[in-house]
Amino acid sequence: MIIVMQSEASPEKADAVVQRIEDMGLKAHVSRGEFRTIIGAIGDETLLKPEYFAGLAGVESVMPIMKPYKLASRDFHHEDSVVEVGPFRAGGDAVSVIAGPCSVESEDQVRTTARAVRDAGGTMLRGGAFKPRSSPYSFQGLGEDGLKILRDAAAEVGLPTVTEVLDVREVELVARYADVLQIGARNMQNFRLLTEVGQVERPVFLKRNPAATIEELLMSAEYVLSEGNHRVMLCERGIRGFDKSTRYLLDLAAVAVIRRDSHLPILVDPSHATGRRELVVPMALAAIAGGAHGVMVEVHPDPEKALSDGPQQLVPEAFRQMMAELGPIADAVGRTLQRAEI
Amino acid sequence: MIIVMQSEASPEKADAVVQRIEDMGLKAHVSRGEFRTIIGAIGDETLLKPEYFAGLAGVESVMPIMKPYKLASRDFHHEDSVVEVGPFRAGGDAVSVIAGPCSVESEDQVRTTARAVRDAGGTMLRGGAFKPRSSPYSFQGLGEDGLKILRDAAAEVGLPTVTEVLDVREVELVARYADVLQIGARNMQNFRLLTEVGQVERPVFLKRNPAATIEELLMSAEYVLSEGNHRVMLCERGIRGFDKSTRYLLDLAAVAVIRRDSHLPILVDPSHATGRRELVVPMALAAIAGGAHGVMVEVHPDPEKALSDGPQQLVPEAFRQMMAELGPIADAVGRTLQRAEI
Amino acid sequence: MIIVMQSEASPEKADAVVQRIEDMGLKAHVSRGEFRTIIGAIGDETLLKPEYFAGLAGVESVMPIMKPYKLASRDFHHEDSVVEVGPFRAGGDAVSVIAGPCSVESEDQVRTTARAVRDAGGTMLRGGAFKPRSSPYSFQGLGEDGLKILRDAAAEVGLPTVTEVLDVREVELVARYADVLQIGARNMQNFRLLTEVGQVERPVFLKRNPAATIEELLMSAEYVLSEGNHRVMLCERGIRGFDKSTRYLLDLAAVAVIRRDSHLPILVDPSHATGRRELVVPMALAAIAGGAHGVMVEVHPDPEKALSDGPQQLVPEAFRQMMAELGPIADAVGRTLQRAEI
Amino acid sequence: MIIVMQSEASPEKADAVVQRIEDMGLKAHVSRGEFRTIIGAIGDETLLKPEYFAGLAGVESVMPIMKPYKLASRDFHHEDSVVEVGPFRAGGDAVSVIAGPCSVESEDQVRTTARAVRDAGGTMLRGGAFKPRSSPYSFQGLGEDGLKILRDAAAEVGLPTVTEVLDVREVELVARYADVLQIGARNMQNFRLLTEVGQVERPVFLKRNPAATIEELLMSAEYVLSEGNHRVMLCERGIRGFDKSTRYLLDLAAVAVIRRDSHLPILVDPSHATGRRELVVPMALAAIAGGAHGVMVEVHPDPEKALSDGPQQLVPEAFRQMMAELGPIADAVGRTLQRAEI
Repeated sequence: MIIVMQSEASPEKADAVVQRIEDMGLKAHVSRGEFRTIIGAIGDETLLKPEYFAGLAGVESVMPIMKPYKLASRDFHHEDSVVEVGPFRAGGDAVSVIAGPCSVESEDQVRTTARAVRDAGGTMLRGGAFKPRSSPYSFQGLGEDGLKILRDAAAEVGLPTVTEVLDVREVELVARYADVLQIGARNMQNFRLLTEVGQVERPVFLKRNPAATIEELLMSAEYVLSEGNHRVMLCERGIRGFDKSTRYLLDLAAVAVIRRDSHLPILVDPSHATGRRELVVPMALAAIAGGAHGVMVEVHPDPEKALSDGPQQLVPEAFRQMMAELGPIADAVGRTLQRAEI
Repeated sequence: MIIVMQSEASPEKADAVVQRIEDMGLKAHVSRGEFRTIIGAIGDETLLKPEYFAGLAGVESVMPIMKPYKLASRDFHHEDSVVEVGPFRAGGDAVSVIAGPCSVESEDQVRTTARAVRDAGGTMLRGGAFKPRSSPYSFQGLGEDGLKILRDAAAEVGLPTVTEVLDVREVELVARYADVLQIGARNMQNFRLLTEVGQVERPVFLKRNPAATIEELLMSAEYVLSEGNHRVMLCERGIRGFDKSTRYLLDLAAVAVIRRDSHLPILVDPSHATGRRELVVPMALAAIAGGAHGVMVEVHPDPEKALSDGPQQLVPEAFRQMMAELGPIADAVGRTLQRAEI
Repeated sequence: MIIVMQSEASPEKADAVVQRIEDMGLKAHVSRGEFRTIIGAIGDETLLKPEYFAGLAGVESVMPIMKPYKLASRDFHHEDSVVEVGPFRAGGDAVSVIAGPCSVESEDQVRTTARAVRDAGGTMLRGGAFKPRSSPYSFQGLGEDGLKILRDAAAEVGLPTVTEVLDVREVELVARYADVLQIGARNMQNFRLLTEVGQVERPVFLKRNPAATIEELLMSAEYVLSEGNHRVMLCERGIRGFDKSTRYLLDLAAVAVIRRDSHLPILVDPSHATGRRELVVPMALAAIAGGAHGVMVEVHPDPEKALSDGPQQLVPEAFRQMMAELGPIADAVGRTLQRAEI
Repeated sequence: MIIVMQSEASPEKADAVVQRIEDMGLKAHVSRGEFRTIIGAIGDETLLKPEYFAGLAGVESVMPIMKPYKLASRDFHHEDSVVEVGPFRAGGDAVSVIAGPCSVESEDQVRTTARAVRDAGGTMLRGGAFKPRSSPYSFQGLGEDGLKILRDAAAEVGLPTVTEVLDVREVELVARYADVLQIGARNMQNFRLLTEVGQVERPVFLKRNPAATIEELLMSAEYVLSEGNHRVMLCERGIRGFDKSTRYLLDLAAVAVIRRDSHLPILVDPSHATGRRELVVPMALAAIAGGAHGVMVEVHPDPEKALSDGPQQLVPEAFRQMMAELGPIADAVGRTLQRAEI
């Protein structure tokens, strides 16, 4: 950690910083320059917090050198982590495709979709039973009935399921029905929920909040990992941007940054990011070419009648077409598009 | 609601949109232009959702005319809402100052701060007992012990308290100790938590998420209001920006927009927004001049030793100075700075 | 164009809006709803400007239906435009690779790079002779000498050149030496410069400003097109974002939006967008998979000694490797990676 | 400057960094930590550029300690700069109000506005004769005729004028007619234009680009200052934000940051920032309370007929009202609202 003193700070103030560093069992290294004094703290920086120093008299700024996460970091786990979900893998060389409707609406809808997803080769079935909605007046999901519908439809076609959990009191319930627990973008920093899903025997699919830095996403993963659940998959789904041509702003470079800094699998959700059907497929292809471990896309047999997110859901035929295009892209980057067997 | 058809959409597709509008008991108004057909839905738009139309074949875009919130809207409640908290009011002409440490750390710390806040005229005491922290390795708050310390210190000086609740399972607990329940920025769209605090007899202090639009903030308020709890105060605390000179980007124009569109009190937290002590006071003055109903600022007797957010906490003397400067600003805009009596 | 009246606006105010529409030779269509009156202007909307109405008494908001650009729009030019540059094409099915150093620094440097670019199959040589630099104290480019060096090095290997022009007084000079005139991101709304390059016989390579919407980029293209120069190529190079992991935030969905709304070729510059060598290649691959007509990347024989942008420039060997990876991606999406012949 | 080496970098790579620092006549200070080596460059950092090091092998990141600007910095010029314009001052304790129409449209319009501005106490008259417009089809200004109209109307009421120059070839022309040269937000990084206005005998009013950091704004000021023109006023006018409730996002904390880091006067333009009449006045009051040296607002005798920016222009009566409210705010913060004498 580097601590930069203000230009007018007295030597005593620098001494106080040094003292605090040494009190923590680390070594301090002082550089007195012409304009400013700079102090380096040498040792295991994870013992330090910038806030221990930023408030000290005479301190201008504090720059951490090390990342604040450990279990999520590639520094401490060099190989890609691979999360096994049913017969499929997420991470490493595998390319995964998670697909299904935004919301579970009815048995028929989910069954039709499940078959379409499996037939086209999708590897997991998604569908929301508990829906976080901006408006209290919007459809909030079918709850436990939705979980059952999803489980049954998936079982029929042999796919594992991914579904969102949004309440600490429902983690156990959702874990009874689903194979993977999704933490939605709005709950990325619901730390109590992260702690709870860190304690169950289910892989976690953690979506980036639209205001979160990559580091904050990895810190949220750290909450889950530090509870002992090592099966975490990350998902980029668009951050806030100023151009209203797309719903959110898909940050594909985040995929490359995460692959450099972390060993965790990182997938991309182009449906929520763009909000427009015609942009979903090009962004899915771009994601895989850019190094993502997979995509999550919304598929609905009849998007015109969808109770949520109609304009961004693909019809089964469009999904099939997307799968056909993804294969050659995965090959081109030396990876393997996994496919459900029919 | 206005539905714009794609230029190449067939008349049948427009007819299908009209049919859906009429099925909902509203009237449709069709304008066939040279380039495009445009359809207006006439009637109570709160019955409609853009998503019912955006997914229909041939639809290019859907533009709602009415706001999606109702109870939070000034259209349905013309007068400013005033929330009473102990002997003080928030909203209308009153200017409120909520102050205290970021985290409750010890009895001494909170007592000293409480006295300083009261002596300078502050109207509510804040302090975090349950802390949402980006890192699982950071100080997470003293929990129930912290709630007790805060309550006791506030009682000694006769101030009401504001503290954050971040878990649906702790709403009752926090409500037993605190006068006002704060929903932190990261939980602004934790809809289950909003629903829970909508059901207790405590005013709610709802902070804007750094990625949230003003409309989304008001929709989150609508969750609380629609459960029957009408005592909601809003708080602008900075959104995500690209310039790292400040921690977040304080959006003061949001105050003016909210005062135009909603009747709810809106306060400003310049401490979290800027992250730097020397910027807190100018932004507090700007907030009140720009129409805010008050400010929330962090005060700590010894910020150098603070366990969180040291660099942005004011020492008691700086807080006293800020109060002295706020009075004339409130006067200048024809409002009343409330002051605790000593 | 849709004009929404305020809920309390009198009928006379709506009449005044109708009058203004009719004064312009268009037809007005009035829908009086329960809560609001809405007025549609029917006819060629490019005759109207939102600002003619937004300021009228009683008007709440104005929503254009048509795009404000015409020559750049796919509505008026359905087929992809293809810009020919020397023996190469940009647009349509062709994938172009523009490469070269950030700045022209010396004959040796540019010659070595030119050969490396050509040998690896790159289709145009880039290099800055006039450099827009944030600081007046930074290297500002070699000026006309740089133009000569670039031209000569390119001629030796048979590649066309792209270089930036940043002053209206130098358009002719740059056009004498270069095959394609680049308008840099900072000058995207230097309308006088756009007008000037619209009058020369050189294709224009127009980069998106980090604060510009896609619509604004297309409006800037419209400046060039409306002067009679139809050979415009667009370039996405990253917009402002809040995460400092990358220099700018690459907006790849913009590529898909532009391909939908415009016929102009759209390329991507992953070097400036990410600012980090190790992110350039994955983002180049993602760009092509996502539909971009090509990429512009920085190549330098010895980036450690570069006078600008060292950390983002590829060494020749890395560039060769990138070209090898781009081919299969282009094939996978049914497009053709053009290659310089050796 | 601090250079952080990658964890796996060899000692030879660190030596190469040290060598380069010493080659530049500075001293290097090496801290070899458990995880990483960190190198400080001691001496006048303005001799160094991050880019000299960021591209070196084994370097992970480079952190400048000193600001990259000098003449604009408060470190080298402790007192507030005061720019004199006619009988008025901008900077220090003075509060300036610049007002007038967005565009010069006619003699009548500007004369009426000039009288209204002067009568209400405004200190400078603004008005655009050369207008930068996103669309080539929008009104581009009256050109030299507009300059004459503005000069004559201002002369009649005894006010100095501010008008935009947007072409390097017109700097002299505009300087013949106007008292202050405005560099618009879109030209903030038109470095040639900055250099030209640095060479004329006119104060410069430099607006922040919506994508510019505060540091970039100060670097642009440095261009003007380094040419010898020390009369620079800065203006915050809103940056890009994700919420469409306001046109841009007014960054008032930037005012406080600039006052801390620079000695230059900083004004605020709430008209362009918000784009809505009803938000202009609260934000003008907030700006002055927050420390701005003045505001620039748009005033039009008949905004409904304005050729540009109708919805954000104040009518004269609203402007008078705003002036009446600004006085007490200026008093409250111990500053002086200058007023034109009638």
